[in-house]
Amino acid sequence: MPVDSTASSEVTAYRWVPDFAQGLVRDLRVRWALEEIDRPYRVRLLDVTKPRPDEYFCEQPFGQVPAYRDDEVQLFESGAILIHLGLQDERLLPADHAQRMRAIAWLIASLNSVEPAIFPLLMINVFNKGEPWTEEARPKFLERLNSRLKCMSDALGDKEWLEGRFTIADLMLVTVLRQLRGGKTVDQFPNLAALVARGEARPAFQRALADQLEVFAKNQPEPQPA
Amino acid sequence: MPVDSTASSEVTAYRWVPDFAQGLVRDLRVRWALEEIDRPYRVRLLDVTKPRPDEYFCEQPFGQVPAYRDDEVQLFESGAILIHLGLQDERLLPADHAQRMRAIAWLIASLNSVEPAIFPLLMINVFNKGEPWTEEARPKFLERLNSRLKCMSDALGDKEWLEGRFTIADLMLVTVLRQLRGGKTVDQFPNLAALVARGEARPAFQRALADQLEVFAKNQPEPQPA
Repeated sequence: MPVDSTASSEVTAYRWVPDFAQGLVRDLRVRWALEEIDRPYRVRLLDVTKPRPDEYFCEQPFGQVPAYRDDEVQLFESGAILIHLGLQDERLLPADHAQRMRAIAWLIASLNSVEPAIFPLLMINVFNKGEPWTEEARPKFLERLNSRLKCMSDALGDKEWLEGRFTIADLMLVTVLRQLRGGKTVDQFPNLAALVARGEARPAFQRALADQLEVFAKNQPEPQPA
Repeated sequence: MPVDSTASSEVTAYRWVPDFAQGLVRDLRVRWALEEIDRPYRVRLLDVTKPRPDEYFCEQPFGQVPAYRDDEVQLFESGAILIHLGLQDERLLPADHAQRMRAIAWLIASLNSVEPAIFPLLMINVFNKGEPWTEEARPKFLERLNSRLKCMSDALGDKEWLEGRFTIADLMLVTVLRQLRGGKTVDQFPNLAALVARGEARPAFQRALADQLEVFAKNQPEPQPA
């Protein structure tokens, strides 16, 4: 059972987030990877509704989660944390240098070629929802996202995982694509939708998700008096 | 002199791009890293004005540059190529695992926490320039970018390089921030502007840039008859 308050590996997470973000916060990526390798970790909770303490920016320069530490490293950026864990365990990343680098290339493709095309749509559909410019902007950004997803879909083809076996590349792509949940964008690419389903079906994913959601459920804010 | 048609390392690049992109195309990142370690490479040129050949998508799933190959690997994503080169040469990445991972975390921060905030502004200012929605959208995206740059600026502080010595983390941040050239955004953060200037002053950067620009100058399209 990886969540263990005495573990030497520590992941930061939020105590609670609004519904639209539950199950998407990026500590999920690290929790999932740690579950895949049965490595225990403790969770340090931060309050998303308040500014992060000044000293937290030394751990995570953008004040976000996750930050990660263990006996060897003190890290931020979920992609870097996954690479660190992958370099230590072949269940996440092959030992062969060429194969390892291929998986890292796919991981970075998710972070730099796919996720940046999703972020403007989160502004349009969530953070700036209803503002007049968003209606005109949406098709422009959707077109860009669809062209990136088509490339990923073509590259995946009928493979089970991006490089034939499960790696941090798949873990990252699944968690990036899950940000589009509730829409029909991913469903236009049945092999990508199936990859997400395969990832979500892994017991390690399910344990990681349940652990993230359990914290939110425990810390649900009281309804404010009207 | 790293550009060498007989070298076993190969980088793909464009034969020519419009002025706004000259000096920014991402093969520059790989050329720069190769110059830092004096490793010869050959260049394979692609035509940006035509669709990329179908088979190129097997090398680079988004049809972009750079793709990279050498005797060991066949890779895409400039971030992954820099990690590959860094793992082979301490001039790009320290050998110590904890220090190495810190530099990789900063590299990914540039790719996933800074560059995604720049991309919507390229759509607003270049690709969709003049469309009505862009005027309303610009301040929203600029606010996001500025908050990310402030965090990077605070994290850099008065250090010469992000982790005290030059690494692929600095190389990546400099090339990401250079995408904002011609505007005043970076100048609001004098230490970031100074980091870009320090990067651009490195002889390896200057050779890499000159080599990219030389190809464009040679292949400047003929003016079309009116």
